[in-house]
Amino acid sequence: MGIGDDAALFVPTPGYQTILTCDWFLEGTHFLREKHPADSVGWKCLARALSDVAAMGGKPRCFLLNLALPKTHIGRWFDDFLGGLNRAAHKFACLLVGGDTSRQEKILINVTVIGEVRTGQAVLRSGAKPGDAIFVSGRLGEAELGLRRLRKTKGRVHKSDLRLKKHLYPEPRFALGQWLAKNRLATSMMDLSDGLSTDLHRLCAASRVGARIDATKIPTVKIRGNDILFRTRQSIGQPKNRPRIALDLALNGGDDYELLFTVPKAKLGAIPASFKSTRLTYVGVTSSTKRIVLTDFAGAEALMPSDGWDSFRS
Amino acid sequence: MGIGDDAALFVPTPGYQTILTCDWFLEGTHFLREKHPADSVGWKCLARALSDVAAMGGKPRCFLLNLALPKTHIGRWFDDFLGGLNRAAHKFACLLVGGDTSRQEKILINVTVIGEVRTGQAVLRSGAKPGDAIFVSGRLGEAELGLRRLRKTKGRVHKSDLRLKKHLYPEPRFALGQWLAKNRLATSMMDLSDGLSTDLHRLCAASRVGARIDATKIPTVKIRGNDILFRTRQSIGQPKNRPRIALDLALNGGDDYELLFTVPKAKLGAIPASFKSTRLTYVGVTSSTKRIVLTDFAGAEALMPSDGWDSFRS
Repeated sequence: MGIGDDAALFVPTPGYQTILTCDWFLEGTHFLREKHPADSVGWKCLARALSDVAAMGGKPRCFLLNLALPKTHIGRWFDDFLGGLNRAAHKFACLLVGGDTSRQEKILINVTVIGEVRTGQAVLRSGAKPGDAIFVSGRLGEAELGLRRLRKTKGRVHKSDLRLKKHLYPEPRFALGQWLAKNRLATSMMDLSDGLSTDLHRLCAASRVGARIDATKIPTVKIRGNDILFRTRQSIGQPKNRPRIALDLALNGGDDYELLFTVPKAKLGAIPASFKSTRLTYVGVTSSTKRIVLTDFAGAEALMPSDGWDSFRS
Repeated sequence: MGIGDDAALFVPTPGYQTILTCDWFLEGTHFLREKHPADSVGWKCLARALSDVAAMGGKPRCFLLNLALPKTHIGRWFDDFLGGLNRAAHKFACLLVGGDTSRQEKILINVTVIGEVRTGQAVLRSGAKPGDAIFVSGRLGEAELGLRRLRKTKGRVHKSDLRLKKHLYPEPRFALGQWLAKNRLATSMMDLSDGLSTDLHRLCAASRVGARIDATKIPTVKIRGNDILFRTRQSIGQPKNRPRIALDLALNGGDDYELLFTVPKAKLGAIPASFKSTRLTYVGVTSSTKRIVLTDFAGAEALMPSDGWDSFRS
């Protein structure tokens, strides 16, 4: 059933569990009114909520859009927003079935996604066992690098700027998540929304394990000429620090929406080097110590701080 | 499953459809930070979302809370808010299973409720046929009267002020909605969230019918001494206009969360004068004309304007 009644009504698929997730997407906190293309805001508000469904091994079913807009944004901005939203809804086969609207000075968005997963196949954060191999999909830090480039740009960025693609138009890893779930290869899984350093702490806490990550294994972005001028928390952007900048982006950058998952050693052989063009990288191993340790480029070990995105940080 | 993973997971009840609804509850638009008790904000943000489930004849299952707060409201205010929220969740048997938090200058709330209804029993807005009797539950305008009293009060009102009870602590009509649905007595149903004049237009539009409402039949509030000083759109509050003020509140006041439903003439005998202490009142009849007409106290007929709450009005 579509929009019309106050509530949407649908028939759950027999033999499936329902997945339910929602995400804020707020001006100032998650996007910048004067910088982000409305088309990207529309795409990303849905894509990031969908990513939570992908990270359980599920498939999307439908979504609710809650939108509050200022008067000034009801015309052109809203049309562009709907353009991006509809493309994402079509691409990921997720139907808009309802929501609520209001008027506010700030642009406020909240998206609720309903997904489904075959009963018993959902992969949770809490299933990792000590000794499991830790994997990540794709390349980490690319979305954060895009955000930094966007912040340096004067005015609104162009939606087709390829250097910003991962930041503006993230793609939930549905095919990978479903394949891992269906074949029972992953003991735990979550999406990387707030940076590996923060999200790995969450996965380990839920699974009551520790981890040892090898910095040299983490798939990072290539830092180009201009990018080294960015100041990061761990580096002041000297050329010699390019690998450190890239590592900082990978560990502490948000919005990648890649998958972080653990695989029992006995099933390592079933994990290919890449899945449908997405690289899968073995970056470390879980442990029974409860400590999360990073082995750096020089082979030195240190506790890995949780320095990623935290919406309550400021 | 409770909070922990990014998404909640539950098993739909076999033989039931899933009901999905969500509602904004925003400072300035839906409540006033300096006037409304935090306890009431917590109760009402859930109760009003639940009302959409009641209005389909469903029962609640679980909910997601999306909350953005300023730093100043993380302590005492948040505790009081949770107090009211938890009482409502307990009273209406609806489990908090997840959500998202953020920090903002304004208090922003969005609640998503998942409910269930036996397959085929959901009552929609769109089922009314010409000639059906139109009913409302309870007494209309009481919540709006409470809001006006609240606006006149200096500072924050007290949560146990009985004159404000209907405004601060609305109760979704679950028992009535389920009884009507189960016994297939209602051809259409919705909750009165934005005033009878607005919501009846919505129900009639969805059902492609018109309606004739008798003003003398509408169950209104009793206007007391101080209340007649309120200016309304239809009256300037002279004592002789008390019935008009009460009628204006009933037609155009929001937040009552009573049920509006239609009953085929053949089933009129099955509708009692009250159901579990809630009055059920026959206020008019649907027609095939598409016009919505109000017969006033003097017996004169006029088109009924849609003057209720509209979140995009200003």
